[in-house]
Amino acid sequence: MEDNSIYQFSLLNALMDGICEVGIPTSKLLQKGNQGLGTFVRMDGELVMLDGTVYQLKGDGSIRAADPHDEIPFAMSTLFKPTISIERAIPNKESIDEIFDEFFPHTANQFVSYRFEGAFKSMKVRTVRAQEYKGQPLSELGAKQSVFDYEDVEGTVVGFRSPESWQGFSVAGEHLHFISHDRKKGGHILELCSEGVKIGMALNSNVHVELPTDRDFNDAKLAMNDAEIRKVEG
Amino acid sequence: MEDNSIYQFSLLNALMDGICEVGIPTSKLLQKGNQGLGTFVRMDGELVMLDGTVYQLKGDGSIRAADPHDEIPFAMSTLFKPTISIERAIPNKESIDEIFDEFFPHTANQFVSYRFEGAFKSMKVRTVRAQEYKGQPLSELGAKQSVFDYEDVEGTVVGFRSPESWQGFSVAGEHLHFISHDRKKGGHILELCSEGVKIGMALNSNVHVELPTDRDFNDAKLAMNDAEIRKVEG
Repeated sequence: MEDNSIYQFSLLNALMDGICEVGIPTSKLLQKGNQGLGTFVRMDGELVMLDGTVYQLKGDGSIRAADPHDEIPFAMSTLFKPTISIERAIPNKESIDEIFDEFFPHTANQFVSYRFEGAFKSMKVRTVRAQEYKGQPLSELGAKQSVFDYEDVEGTVVGFRSPESWQGFSVAGEHLHFISHDRKKGGHILELCSEGVKIGMALNSNVHVELPTDRDFNDAKLAMNDAEIRKVEG
Repeated sequence: MEDNSIYQFSLLNALMDGICEVGIPTSKLLQKGNQGLGTFVRMDGELVMLDGTVYQLKGDGSIRAADPHDEIPFAMSTLFKPTISIERAIPNKESIDEIFDEFFPHTANQFVSYRFEGAFKSMKVRTVRAQEYKGQPLSELGAKQSVFDYEDVEGTVVGFRSPESWQGFSVAGEHLHFISHDRKKGGHILELCSEGVKIGMALNSNVHVELPTDRDFNDAKLAMNDAEIRKVEG
């Protein structure tokens, strides 16, 4: 794994199609960098990988360190070595793009990986609940997700900005997960606000996609539905 | 480079948008496997990589070994180690898919890399002529391509089958280039017929995409136009 290259297992459209019965073991993802995000088999919660540990953030709000053999049907990770480190307020989710535009102009078709570290005035996250039946699409799960609002919480944000043309492979635009320093709070970020956090960021132009080889994945349509993705992953 | 993983530089939609001013040097592509296909700066001809040499198949029908510093704005390559080797007739381009369906059932969302070696009764190829102006899209060049019909020619076919969902990143379905054993004929295959050739094939589930970092690529829309791709790359 080269510094700041991205590893991705499966395609987001497979989750949209409800394909998440099997995946790579957690022990394998841990070899694919020092930070990442994703989900678990049957979309049972959100995944945060951070410096050697993979966390499962479940729909009931509980958090556990994943077992090495727990399977991951979708993940993105990177061996993150920030090339720019600053301290800055992040008033809202939209302001993240403005920061990247400032430090990485004319990079719309590259990826950006990032990490925010520090105190957040507010943080709104969701955690997806596991499928109720095999093949249940992510869009349905999005309608029943758990949403948590935190105030004055300290923790780490792990994120990726993917180019628009990668919609359906990844999540176009910002995709970021949070875990608190005490490892008791976290999820897929819907909104956030900080008066000042440490921001590390790096550009990525190398993406290694590993495709699942199971029958469900091979039989899937993997058709694009931009509106559904934006609704559930926005 | 792992056996039977795929390396791809840039995205096909960049060529569709006419983005091909710069690329990786030929010397770099040669490190990315033992066979591949692509094009050269300004889409000046077709590229075949075969066992340590990169060939440029030009619009005037001439063929040369590329210089190490010649730049490649789009290419796919693999370190090809066939897992299945057979001898079989290939009556037409459509029959290639039938062979894969027979030996690799239920792999619609994997890649297949392949090599055909031997005598072809007929072979119809095109070679794209270089852009007439910067940014000229591939669809325009397709209307002015050179087409050559060969009969009773011996040579090598290098190809990839890409999943439907990768249309625009790669060429969905079959994408195959030919070079004759005497290195005097070749191009992007439009049609072929053989009464019996050696066929080597392998499944690929790992794809390493390297994105260009230049301004033209970052400013490109990279929007999908399935009909245009099928017309020019079919």
